[in-house]
Amino acid sequence: MVTSPLVNTYPLASYTFGTKEPKMEKDTSVADRLARMKVNYMKEGMRTSVDGILLVQEHNHPHILLLQIGNTFCKLPGGRLKPGENEIEGLKRKLSSKLAANSSLQPDWQIGECVAIWWRPNFETTMYPYCPPHITKPKECKKLFLVHLSEREYFAVPKNLKLLAVPLFELYDNVQRYGPVISTIPQQLSRFQFNMIHQ
Amino acid sequence: MVTSPLVNTYPLASYTFGTKEPKMEKDTSVADRLARMKVNYMKEGMRTSVDGILLVQEHNHPHILLLQIGNTFCKLPGGRLKPGENEIEGLKRKLSSKLAANSSLQPDWQIGECVAIWWRPNFETTMYPYCPPHITKPKECKKLFLVHLSEREYFAVPKNLKLLAVPLFELYDNVQRYGPVISTIPQQLSRFQFNMIHQ
Repeated sequence: MVTSPLVNTYPLASYTFGTKEPKMEKDTSVADRLARMKVNYMKEGMRTSVDGILLVQEHNHPHILLLQIGNTFCKLPGGRLKPGENEIEGLKRKLSSKLAANSSLQPDWQIGECVAIWWRPNFETTMYPYCPPHITKPKECKKLFLVHLSEREYFAVPKNLKLLAVPLFELYDNVQRYGPVISTIPQQLSRFQFNMIHQ
Repeated sequence: MVTSPLVNTYPLASYTFGTKEPKMEKDTSVADRLARMKVNYMKEGMRTSVDGILLVQEHNHPHILLLQIGNTFCKLPGGRLKPGENEIEGLKRKLSSKLAANSSLQPDWQIGECVAIWWRPNFETTMYPYCPPHITKPKECKKLFLVHLSEREYFAVPKNLKLLAVPLFELYDNVQRYGPVISTIPQQLSRFQFNMIHQ
């Protein structure tokens, strides 16, 4: 039989959560965000962004850690790479910027498998899980990586954000609430075998 | 940088398609199908089925080979394993049963990565990309595998079926037409890099 790659998944209760100074969004509207994206594209070319899928378990079911901004919008921890920056190092930098207490107290970020790649063909909000035909100059490439968490970690969450552990069954088929990228994470994780560790 | 696994993708025109005797569906209705599933479950336990994702390219965009039954319903080539049968050997057997000319003229089935696993918790049509919490006895586990096609092959299509090459952009976000399993194949393939080979 083909064996699925194994992912150790620890209980949410084995992690500790604190707070830290707010990390404000750079843009206050979608229009601002797309305009800034355009300016950066002119300077630096295609944007590459990297997001992390941090898994925990509750009741033997995998949950994903999402950052909630305001009352509705959720996103994965991660962000934009600097031009030429290594993907793995850049993702660790972004995860620490969002979730580490300070530069000397950082979780042990073990970046694992790339599970999906999304493309933004235009300076618009729509992304696709392929580069559409006839698009020769995509504006953004976003890569999602599994992050293998250690048994215990301390996460410091910016005061203006909430960190939520959302079960796969809540994400699945819920594009209205979580958008196309996050709502299809359950499908992308389905090939893994979760080793649910209890304590 | 992290390198994506590479998949060689040949033009649709490099393959040859013929026909063979019809392969009728075992069931004439969804109700019949679920009833037969229940009978088999009593005898053999959980059903394991394996489907193959066969990729070709047209206009530099990946297309997937789907079997169309009647005018609307599409499915991946594949099917149910015999109790205890090896997944890879079983998928080769099923692919040959659907697409090989005869037992002595068979495509070179190179079974690759498992890209998704779906679960059927009850004797119903709904499947999930995880085993739902509190379900201890799922009724079916369906695994999707990439099939790496050679540069040239001859496929014999049963006369009652049509073989279609459907582009990823047609499958994406099209659950109404293709159902939840097939319509999210683009997301599951997004982590691969397609090496489009021209001839």
